[in-house]
Amino acid sequence: MSTADTSEKLSRLSSPDLDEVLGLPFRVLDDGFIRVIDYMGTDEAIVQAARVSYGKGTKKVNEDRGLIRYLLRHKHTTPFEMCEIKLHVRVPMDTWRQWIRHRTANVNEYSTRYSVAIDSSQKTSPSEWRKQSSDNKQGSSGFFSPEDGKLLTDQEKEFHNLSQKIYNERIEKGIAREQARKDLPLSTYTEAYWKVDLHNLLHFLALRMDSHAQLEIRQYARTIGEEIVKRWCPIAWEAFQDYVVHSSSLTRMEMEILKEITSGNTESAIQKAIGFGMLNSDRSVKKNREREELEEKLKDLNLNIPW
Amino acid sequence: MSTADTSEKLSRLSSPDLDEVLGLPFRVLDDGFIRVIDYMGTDEAIVQAARVSYGKGTKKVNEDRGLIRYLLRHKHTTPFEMCEIKLHVRVPMDTWRQWIRHRTANVNEYSTRYSVAIDSSQKTSPSEWRKQSSDNKQGSSGFFSPEDGKLLTDQEKEFHNLSQKIYNERIEKGIAREQARKDLPLSTYTEAYWKVDLHNLLHFLALRMDSHAQLEIRQYARTIGEEIVKRWCPIAWEAFQDYVVHSSSLTRMEMEILKEITSGNTESAIQKAIGFGMLNSDRSVKKNREREELEEKLKDLNLNIPW
Amino acid sequence: MSTADTSEKLSRLSSPDLDEVLGLPFRVLDDGFIRVIDYMGTDEAIVQAARVSYGKGTKKVNEDRGLIRYLLRHKHTTPFEMCEIKLHVRVPMDTWRQWIRHRTANVNEYSTRYSVAIDSSQKTSPSEWRKQSSDNKQGSSGFFSPEDGKLLTDQEKEFHNLSQKIYNERIEKGIAREQARKDLPLSTYTEAYWKVDLHNLLHFLALRMDSHAQLEIRQYARTIGEEIVKRWCPIAWEAFQDYVVHSSSLTRMEMEILKEITSGNTESAIQKAIGFGMLNSDRSVKKNREREELEEKLKDLNLNIPW
Amino acid sequence: MSTADTSEKLSRLSSPDLDEVLGLPFRVLDDGFIRVIDYMGTDEAIVQAARVSYGKGTKKVNEDRGLIRYLLRHKHTTPFEMCEIKLHVRVPMDTWRQWIRHRTANVNEYSTRYSVAIDSSQKTSPSEWRKQSSDNKQGSSGFFSPEDGKLLTDQEKEFHNLSQKIYNERIEKGIAREQARKDLPLSTYTEAYWKVDLHNLLHFLALRMDSHAQLEIRQYARTIGEEIVKRWCPIAWEAFQDYVVHSSSLTRMEMEILKEITSGNTESAIQKAIGFGMLNSDRSVKKNREREELEEKLKDLNLNIPW
Repeated sequence: MSTADTSEKLSRLSSPDLDEVLGLPFRVLDDGFIRVIDYMGTDEAIVQAARVSYGKGTKKVNEDRGLIRYLLRHKHTTPFEMCEIKLHVRVPMDTWRQWIRHRTANVNEYSTRYSVAIDSSQKTSPSEWRKQSSDNKQGSSGFFSPEDGKLLTDQEKEFHNLSQKIYNERIEKGIAREQARKDLPLSTYTEAYWKVDLHNLLHFLALRMDSHAQLEIRQYARTIGEEIVKRWCPIAWEAFQDYVVHSSSLTRMEMEILKEITSGNTESAIQKAIGFGMLNSDRSVKKNREREELEEKLKDLNLNIPW
Repeated sequence: MSTADTSEKLSRLSSPDLDEVLGLPFRVLDDGFIRVIDYMGTDEAIVQAARVSYGKGTKKVNEDRGLIRYLLRHKHTTPFEMCEIKLHVRVPMDTWRQWIRHRTANVNEYSTRYSVAIDSSQKTSPSEWRKQSSDNKQGSSGFFSPEDGKLLTDQEKEFHNLSQKIYNERIEKGIAREQARKDLPLSTYTEAYWKVDLHNLLHFLALRMDSHAQLEIRQYARTIGEEIVKRWCPIAWEAFQDYVVHSSSLTRMEMEILKEITSGNTESAIQKAIGFGMLNSDRSVKKNREREELEEKLKDLNLNIPW
Repeated sequence: MSTADTSEKLSRLSSPDLDEVLGLPFRVLDDGFIRVIDYMGTDEAIVQAARVSYGKGTKKVNEDRGLIRYLLRHKHTTPFEMCEIKLHVRVPMDTWRQWIRHRTANVNEYSTRYSVAIDSSQKTSPSEWRKQSSDNKQGSSGFFSPEDGKLLTDQEKEFHNLSQKIYNERIEKGIAREQARKDLPLSTYTEAYWKVDLHNLLHFLALRMDSHAQLEIRQYARTIGEEIVKRWCPIAWEAFQDYVVHSSSLTRMEMEILKEITSGNTESAIQKAIGFGMLNSDRSVKKNREREELEEKLKDLNLNIPW
Repeated sequence: MSTADTSEKLSRLSSPDLDEVLGLPFRVLDDGFIRVIDYMGTDEAIVQAARVSYGKGTKKVNEDRGLIRYLLRHKHTTPFEMCEIKLHVRVPMDTWRQWIRHRTANVNEYSTRYSVAIDSSQKTSPSEWRKQSSDNKQGSSGFFSPEDGKLLTDQEKEFHNLSQKIYNERIEKGIAREQARKDLPLSTYTEAYWKVDLHNLLHFLALRMDSHAQLEIRQYARTIGEEIVKRWCPIAWEAFQDYVVHSSSLTRMEMEILKEITSGNTESAIQKAIGFGMLNSDRSVKKNREREELEEKLKDLNLNIPW
């Protein structure tokens, strides 16, 4: 007696929609790509694993879609770890530096000790130069005019040519590849096999599709999400949109103030905000990030800011 | 230009020998099993990943078998992480306690909070009762006679019946499952989906197929190795036998003494052994584990012990 | 030139409040405990690490408390990984089975292969027997009367005595410890050193202090939180309360319906709820967990349920 | 009753030798460093943790040094995870790319999105330019003459000045820092807090102190080993030298051939070598890496190569 029928042979689960694009590169940036090499499991594998945990009890109550959505909504993450995907990515080293910070993945990167570096650097077109954001220290905001950008792009092109020339000269002179590469610009493309389970991939996507992520990695993340995960595990992908990407969270303070507002107690809301350090004691607005974040959320809910 | 041909569609790699047994349980112990639910990659996936790391350079030099063997021999482990397997296991909780200590795997275990516990405990037959080893504090050595074992087995059976009866009574009385289970014996079977990559699986097998591992988990490990990995990635499995399972290692001290012995310098060997604290200064043998371990290795090499 | 002043010797950060209780056991359950063996870092270490990431820029803008709260609110988790703590815990094996599922910790557990098992099992007093929850398949709800409990407790005591007697007999007969232990009840205490960083500890606490966690592990989690983390990193602990423990989250659907409600559009709210499958098309309430969850949140905000 | 005396307050373990250098930078390369920020545990912590695992049994048998050596020799690695260290490192991005591949550590890196990049690149002096190894595709072998190196160094200096100039211009023009950095050379220094346990640190050192590791990371690894670990956990460090760094391993084939050689059976040794594909069937030497590796080991043992 077991929790599952073990008398019949299994076949591997497969996702016909993903099979359609297996090996085919989705282009990202000027010369990057992402392509699926292999995968294990589909939406059905999530259900299969959950049913081992929950035993026979689940079968009748939920159908698959409801179960997957329930699991994701309540952060029962282990069944999502039962799906695995292997991608071949081509990405600028600067972007890869951010990517590789996610530790829960398996990686084989192209070795520039062993082989000559990939002869391609990410180029910025005249209309792609971004301005430093003034209110977000680690972000950008808006673009330079194509006219201003033209100069920057020309300068960049010249610099890439020079760096490539120096690299090639070093290689021709017989300098060790491991040393010759030391001055390659961060924009140089690298390639890697990157293997990760669905739970950790969704966590990666939540962080890297976010508007605070850098534009370049965001483009890779979106491609993975919309071109690959959506084909691979469409139900999990939809649940991820509903419960993670488009969800909102409220802190203890925000809950308390919101409760006063929805109950019509404007004065109590203000007193709470003062108590939480969001307003000065004379009710005037003070520089305070939590207040600003709350105000954004009130706007999203079509509620008036009481102060 | 990329490190790989990206113009053609891929198909998923598959292992026909493993496909043959997909879903079918390999029996272990009296009521346990292991069966393969799904997998990703084969020997070929190891080669494929290595070639991303090493670029175009490798293709001509090595054929696949040689490359896989080279990688394993030199502990280039990342390409082995590119294969993944998902097993459904049924195992006594006592064995599972050891199994789960390996942290680099994904797990969905049967929940005895959610469902009634599996109605089966690992039974010990009269001939299976093992004696405490006298020289290995954490091992066993030899068996009790079936006559002596009979009494133990009868006592065990009675105890299992009693524990099951108490558990069932608690459940019938309406005690919460999460609490009713608190006195189940460790011999109670549990089930889990266990997903792991080939590198970490081989590490698990190296530790758990070893003669120092407990007999029960050793039987599971051997089944995974010989029935599953051998079918799945036969070249990697053979390399693992040659370079890990049947390899030997020599410490700095062992190397130094061995060198004296193979050079015929018996006296120097003895002096070194004294210097390393393996012998007393009067050359008499002292209780010392490193000396004992060295003597074992000398015997394996058909060499005389010089002291 | 570096991001930090490297010309002066450092001293180790220490937390005087935690030093007060170092090594002293906090009692949990009838015979369990948790005690702090060692730790690294304090609130200040979080700030120190964040300032390496953010360079000189941060220093003026935020003071420490604000920075820690900002980091936790926005899930910048890596600085919290810079604090580490090592606990000595004594816990029933049944609870330990749940505990050990958290993989991002270092563990040394008491070995019942090497040594005789700890001679203590978690006992349930007459007033502690819990009823199976009817609406939560993996929970309990309410207690049996002490009179009913008395019988269960007596039965349990007898069973513990018997299992201990059988275990001792096996040991005396010379059965290998690794095998003799196979029928110990899950209520048997084990001990371990458990070492974890603050980020992963807070994640553990978020899951295990939650009302859905089993009562036993919840008591351990609360003790760790309120007796240990609160003394160790009081600012991070307070932020954790405000932004994790007492926070609330809203799904995409909940946001959309809530927005209609706070805008006074009851009819639109109902239409949305129908569209999301929370209500039948005739506006009648259907069995739907998402609707129930939303209704809970509306109550928390003192808002009327529009259907 | 517990496995340890829980009645007395503990103090934190400390390593006086390491305390001496806390915060002080050890210089590496032309402008890099490593300094210890904090640590937890010492050799004594390894013993302490092992004794939880092994219970009371160990105390009498082994003294601390013997126990630590035994644990390391037999790869009982978990007690070594009970020591933790936090380093502040300054390292070229090219080296950091290799460093960060070790996933079992906690990291806070200097952010060039948030702050202006560190104004320093690793410079190669005229005598430091290395030649590509001809027999090791991923290594270097020998140096260029200082005269030849002079030109390369001058060229490099000019290139660094140019890249820095372009970066500064971009920043001054208001280009977002996250984008301005895209063409920084890999030789640009970065800084990070890097926190790791002793087991994983020793694994890192075994790989990165090895002669196959790139010279730059090898210098960091040696500094960590010889200046830091040696002061921190001197007994573990010594055991690591004896059992890992200066150990040797023999494959199944090497063991079999060696046994024939030490038994004087030259002919059998040759036949085995033919059977293992190390020699051609006419006994002539064929290109075969395993044979070359074996020959190296035979030389180390002062044994004649039989073919």
